[in-house]
Amino acid sequence: MKKGVTILGATGSVGRNALAVIDSLRDHFSIVGLTACRNAPLLRELIERYHPRYAALADEEQADALRSACPGHTRVLGGLEGVISVAAASEAQIVLSAIVGAAGLQPVLAAIKKGRTIALANKEPLVMAGGIITGLAQNVGATLLPVDSEHSAIFQCLCGNREQKIHKIVLTASGGPFYNTSTEALANVTPEQALAHPTWSMGAKISVDSATLMNKGLEVIEAHWLFGVDVESIEVVIHPTSVVHSMVEFLDGSIIAQLGRNDMKLPIQFALTYPDRMECPVERLDITEVSPLEFFPPKLDKFPCLALAYEAAKVGGTMPAVLNAANEVAVDEFLQRRLHFQEIPTIIERVMRDHQPVADPRLGDILAADEWARESAMESQRSHT
Amino acid sequence: MKKGVTILGATGSVGRNALAVIDSLRDHFSIVGLTACRNAPLLRELIERYHPRYAALADEEQADALRSACPGHTRVLGGLEGVISVAAASEAQIVLSAIVGAAGLQPVLAAIKKGRTIALANKEPLVMAGGIITGLAQNVGATLLPVDSEHSAIFQCLCGNREQKIHKIVLTASGGPFYNTSTEALANVTPEQALAHPTWSMGAKISVDSATLMNKGLEVIEAHWLFGVDVESIEVVIHPTSVVHSMVEFLDGSIIAQLGRNDMKLPIQFALTYPDRMECPVERLDITEVSPLEFFPPKLDKFPCLALAYEAAKVGGTMPAVLNAANEVAVDEFLQRRLHFQEIPTIIERVMRDHQPVADPRLGDILAADEWARESAMESQRSHT
Repeated sequence: MKKGVTILGATGSVGRNALAVIDSLRDHFSIVGLTACRNAPLLRELIERYHPRYAALADEEQADALRSACPGHTRVLGGLEGVISVAAASEAQIVLSAIVGAAGLQPVLAAIKKGRTIALANKEPLVMAGGIITGLAQNVGATLLPVDSEHSAIFQCLCGNREQKIHKIVLTASGGPFYNTSTEALANVTPEQALAHPTWSMGAKISVDSATLMNKGLEVIEAHWLFGVDVESIEVVIHPTSVVHSMVEFLDGSIIAQLGRNDMKLPIQFALTYPDRMECPVERLDITEVSPLEFFPPKLDKFPCLALAYEAAKVGGTMPAVLNAANEVAVDEFLQRRLHFQEIPTIIERVMRDHQPVADPRLGDILAADEWARESAMESQRSHT
Repeated sequence: MKKGVTILGATGSVGRNALAVIDSLRDHFSIVGLTACRNAPLLRELIERYHPRYAALADEEQADALRSACPGHTRVLGGLEGVISVAAASEAQIVLSAIVGAAGLQPVLAAIKKGRTIALANKEPLVMAGGIITGLAQNVGATLLPVDSEHSAIFQCLCGNREQKIHKIVLTASGGPFYNTSTEALANVTPEQALAHPTWSMGAKISVDSATLMNKGLEVIEAHWLFGVDVESIEVVIHPTSVVHSMVEFLDGSIIAQLGRNDMKLPIQFALTYPDRMECPVERLDITEVSPLEFFPPKLDKFPCLALAYEAAKVGGTMPAVLNAANEVAVDEFLQRRLHFQEIPTIIERVMRDHQPVADPRLGDILAADEWARESAMESQRSHT
């Protein structure tokens, strides 16, 4: 029997890689639903290729046009409500969430509520509402499987081991394109330079996050929620070539690491086939060809975003949602050339300083904090320039 | 309840490390039996310290003296028969075999027959009689746990994964003390130089085997039997600092590696506490301090022992036992300064060439092949000099 898969964010980088994985394993998986934010032409193409039962476009206007253009088999929905409906569709055993940013939160919650297995490529919902997501998953018995390469690595290192025996998680970071750039030169960094990631080919938002090291900060918070480990026991290590995707050190001092090619098809496929493994159409890694493997402590003062993420995690409550929202705004402003690269952490820090965190937040508190932080970041940006 | 542990070869390097582990976990383990080959003074000391129920000394004459010197609580046996009796003693849940060389074969078989969990630090029995040992263990439901650091690494990498999904095992090798020595200089290598292993502190026989790379060859055969993987799918990679103890590449291209300090207490403790992990009195590894990690393909023509081991494994039957016996004799002759370092593989190759292998051998065939190979190696050595 084929497993039904719904892909949220099917037109993005992870979504398209997931479709490539499913193309190569079409005897094992079928597409139930596909959603996208606003790339209507590509979503239409995918509907024609995969004939999913459901599709949704977050952009309502384009959704109407898509609906009339698409054949009868696929039910095309629109808006956030439409995306949530597709996420909850009962025909899928696995929901892969590859939505970018906070927009993934409510669709992911909808899929968890229905008890689906969630393959989570979208780290922001966990950063914002990790307690709510993991608590709900536990209550309904839904499985959360990481797709981020680092978290897939940690998950693979933990297979067969007991989580309470973890001494430390070591998250590797390439350091991004500017790790060896001088602090002075950082001031003039362009979006094009920030998007040229040295080891991974990814979407725009995550590429900028990698350049500021905020991506690693978000990953620290994500790992905290996925694996139940305090952020103090999650260490970031710079590993320029990203061959070792992450490591777990156990109580006895033994370290288990996962290594592989830097291709998102690997962790995506592992989340789909878990607990099984299948052949993957990715070139194999020859360890003698990627030698030597180098590891350095991170330069925290040059990349303040990482320290801000640790701080938000330690404060807890609504603070990580505020960190995330302010970062989304700042990154967008940087990509629109309205903010310098080094001002990204300045904006985030200012918004965090002004925030009164709510402890043990409900979803409403988190969404309110998210909205407040976005406005506050925009304001801070305007008053600053 | 404390688990009872018997240590075969308690006075050697692995045996003493095992006792140190048990000292630090004395609420969890107690000593049931201790055996040694000929180090009567140390065995006597250990009997006085641990009060085991059983002890045995392979050297019969010294055993008689030890028996009269030792207090009433410990039953002291002598000879191979005595060691076998202690190995089979029913009070132990775990039998750690740290005997050096082929001498471990019959005690290990005796412990397996009784359904004990065997922590196997002694690779030669598996090389000689892997089919018999693993077949017997399967029949009686005895568990074999590896203690060799490389095989413990592979075992840890496989935890939670399915063995039939292995694409390749990558055994790391430090390369030994002579990896960068010129072929000309190898001719004049002394036993003292061969015993100075760059990354591990070990006994004499295994240190010489590491210098010739025969140790890695024996490990390839050991891994074949322990993990049911063809030797063609077991690759050796030179990794000078031995930080990565070994790796497993799975069907999907994902590689899991185990890393740690080069201290035998780690894999010994893991075999004792498995499937649990406990704190270990070994300094933790900081990956940034051991950076960079280098990996190279092995120089097969400079170290012919590795190729000989692959060849013996491919021929199968009694050939690996012959390889092992000829190697034991040649290493001993080298340590006695009666053979040059580079003549070790020459002797082994000659004995292998003269051997008529028996397919699907019984224990008698293996013991006969072992005896024949030892005589043949001695003869070859005498006629050669």
